Amino acid sequence: MTANKRQIKLGMFLRPAAHHIAGWRHPEAWADGGLNFQRYAELAQIAERGLFDMMFSADALTADRYDPDSLSRTSYVAWIDPMSLLTALAPLTKHIGLVCTATTTYDEPFHIARKFASLDLISRGRGGWNLVTSANANEAQNFGRDEHLSKSERYRRAREFVDVVRGLWDSWDDDAFVFDKQEGRFFRPGSVHVLNHVGEFFRVRGPLNVSRSPQGQPVVVQAGASDDGRQLAAETAEVVFTAHQKIETAREFYSDVKNRMAACGRDRDHCKIMPGLGVVVAPTRQEALDKHEQLQDLIHPDVGISMLSKYIAWDLRGMDVDGPVPVVPQDRGAPTRSALLSDTARAEGLTIRQLYRRIAGTRGHFQVIGSPADVADMMEEWITTGAGDGFNIIPPFFPTSLNDFVDLVVPELQRRGLFRTAYEGRTLRENLGLPRPASRYAAGVREDAAAE
Amino acid sequence: MTANKRQIKLGMFLRPAAHHIAGWRHPEAWADGGLNFQRYAELAQIAERGLFDMMFSADALTADRYDPDSLSRTSYVAWIDPMSLLTALAPLTKHIGLVCTATTTYDEPFHIARKFASLDLISRGRGGWNLVTSANANEAQNFGRDEHLSKSERYRRAREFVDVVRGLWDSWDDDAFVFDKQEGRFFRPGSVHVLNHVGEFFRVRGPLNVSRSPQGQPVVVQAGASDDGRQLAAETAEVVFTAHQKIETAREFYSDVKNRMAACGRDRDHCKIMPGLGVVVAPTRQEALDKHEQLQDLIHPDVGISMLSKYIAWDLRGMDVDGPVPVVPQDRGAPTRSALLSDTARAEGLTIRQLYRRIAGTRGHFQVIGSPADVADMMEEWITTGAGDGFNIIPPFFPTSLNDFVDLVVPELQRRGLFRTAYEGRTLRENLGLPRPASRYAAGVREDAAAE
Repeated sequence: MTANKRQIKLGMFLRPAAHHIAGWRHPEAWADGGLNFQRYAELAQIAERGLFDMMFSADALTADRYDPDSLSRTSYVAWIDPMSLLTALAPLTKHIGLVCTATTTYDEPFHIARKFASLDLISRGRGGWNLVTSANANEAQNFGRDEHLSKSERYRRAREFVDVVRGLWDSWDDDAFVFDKQEGRFFRPGSVHVLNHVGEFFRVRGPLNVSRSPQGQPVVVQAGASDDGRQLAAETAEVVFTAHQKIETAREFYSDVKNRMAACGRDRDHCKIMPGLGVVVAPTRQEALDKHEQLQDLIHPDVGISMLSKYIAWDLRGMDVDGPVPVVPQDRGAPTRSALLSDTARAEGLTIRQLYRRIAGTRGHFQVIGSPADVADMMEEWITTGAGDGFNIIPPFFPTSLNDFVDLVVPELQRRGLFRTAYEGRTLRENLGLPRPASRYAAGVREDAAAE
Repeated sequence: MTANKRQIKLGMFLRPAAHHIAGWRHPEAWADGGLNFQRYAELAQIAERGLFDMMFSADALTADRYDPDSLSRTSYVAWIDPMSLLTALAPLTKHIGLVCTATTTYDEPFHIARKFASLDLISRGRGGWNLVTSANANEAQNFGRDEHLSKSERYRRAREFVDVVRGLWDSWDDDAFVFDKQEGRFFRPGSVHVLNHVGEFFRVRGPLNVSRSPQGQPVVVQAGASDDGRQLAAETAEVVFTAHQKIETAREFYSDVKNRMAACGRDRDHCKIMPGLGVVVAPTRQEALDKHEQLQDLIHPDVGISMLSKYIAWDLRGMDVDGPVPVVPQDRGAPTRSALLSDTARAEGLTIRQLYRRIAGTRGHFQVIGSPADVADMMEEWITTGAGDGFNIIPPFFPTSLNDFVDLVVPELQRRGLFRTAYEGRTLRENLGLPRPASRYAAGVREDAAAE
């Protein structure tokens, strides 16, 4: 019976126009996709047709990433604010989860708690927060700082931030609002809790001015891969988004995070680990390979070099594009992705051009190119051998690559009994198989005064 | 000919469930209105049917305003974040402007510029920002501060804040994005401008990661009534929302702000002054008076006293509710509303109960109770004698009072040639009769480097 098979969870990773660095240039690509809300609304419909658990949006608080000329050749420069976008998509969708990235480094817990609780209310239980600490120094300059906070400071702040946000989400009991017109009671006195948080980074009194949301709390997603990131994920995350080049490192990451969760006293099933997965699929393997080559040929070399420089955290401009990738020192607090790329280049003896072509589609995430059976084989192997609970799917460009996945891969996964044929629940938690968190005040553990 | 008559501009002032302090208790009121997105979506449909220029949402960054018992008897305690709300309403509406309050005291210019530009993109040119400086000390405690910034500090910050936001809104030229697939140019090099703002409160490099929006810039709304507030409005606002108890003060305010605008070199027509206006309307005057009494009788005295204490900025609890309103000292930087109420009580010899009943519906804004002709007479007088360019309509509770206005008052205004019978334009600016601002970089006044 296929009914008992492990079920794959699927995220749909959004990006303005395209994930592939040159994807927006494809004849079928919606080049204006990042600035045209209608395009996003259509993508949401396609993703719901494909029964995705969630749409997932990354974010950055800057338009800068490359030199001006390379920048002008890329599509990730200006886009609708993801939180605004996903909130506007909520009333246009019924089933799909809406997961948005927000940084703990340049925002306030009260704002974040409020916006995600509101997203959960508007979507009737489909909101999620992808917590990031921001690794891009350009962002600092848009928020009054010359330099980025140190990594350990960012993670200390993130840990306190998420604790405050969760406390604020519990400000009101689930049954607080009685709307009793006869007695004149809008809410039950005693059903509201003052947080009174005082910590290293934040002092927040509370309560939040939003009710407890349909999911109790929006789903918390995390993506850090460093030791700090893994530990924070094990302590707080309900979904982990992660990047791997090989199944072996994905398995190592998977068991490490699950073990850390157990060490924190958490149930291993209460966090879904979802590696990013680029998919170039076509009816036959050869067609898929051709499709991929067509995209690769659209990459301007300057853009390839600029992109690789950013991800490997080393300026490669001026070096021979067909020469070897230099050995990049890893002692400067560089992001985990940098070491991953550096190791890959050394192990496989790649040139700069070969390495930038390798990351052009997925920026260091695993990529599969092949027939529907090839893609499903790969996904099945990962899912059944402890490399992931699902995948965050990275379509090279929109909308064609998303339609390809929905039309070709989803039916193959369903035939194998690895993926739903209808949404199981009404909320993102229900579809992901995550429990609804009890309020920290529910068990009567603490005595709390009403708001005064 | 009525066609040449001055046209009234109309805002629809949203509030969770009700504006009247006890309005949520009315048998027809949607008591859950602040937490139920569907209710808001229906209100938006009603407002578009009434051809309102805009929906307007106030905001506060706290759930606290009264003692716990009084608080539990009121509906303005927990609600969907207004920015999230109006953004989610954008794809469900076609014509109405979406104006949201956001504070300059507890937010960052980069976030605000981005969210309102995104609202303008999603709504195709219907976004507006009501700039406030936050006068509620409870808010400070949710953002790591014990006390509020001083009024003059708040206004200095606000002035710099709006300047940064407008600079960020001009980051990209209107024609920056060419999406040239053939040449591989996503945007025109040279069409992006780095702000490099360094001021007293903010250092923001830019550029913004959102394109210039359909309106060029979202409409900037302001509501401060103090001297600082009037000056900021004259310098920066395109709509001013204001509170008056009498036509005389409204006229004084109107001519003062318009004169200050002229002194700044601005066209007097480029800012629309819209006093708040509570409307209790019924087919006959007596029915309207009865309706109003029914609402007034729902006010719990503790709530009335708590509410008045807050607006007059003086604790009245324990005083004789049928005794005179005490003289409240006005030398503590109290909000302008406090003096207004204090003066009214003294001039008319009101008791505490009489004064709280006076403000229970509109919190100090003018209120008209009567037949459609009574309401239209009053509006016509204000609009034709220099007391306002339009009104921000305050329905006592939702949805009934909004339907009443749309069904009874709007046709009367249309009959008199004072109000549109169809939307004139596609954007909020076009409907309000405001010009589309040119980019600060458009005239070639400054030489700017591309983002690097």
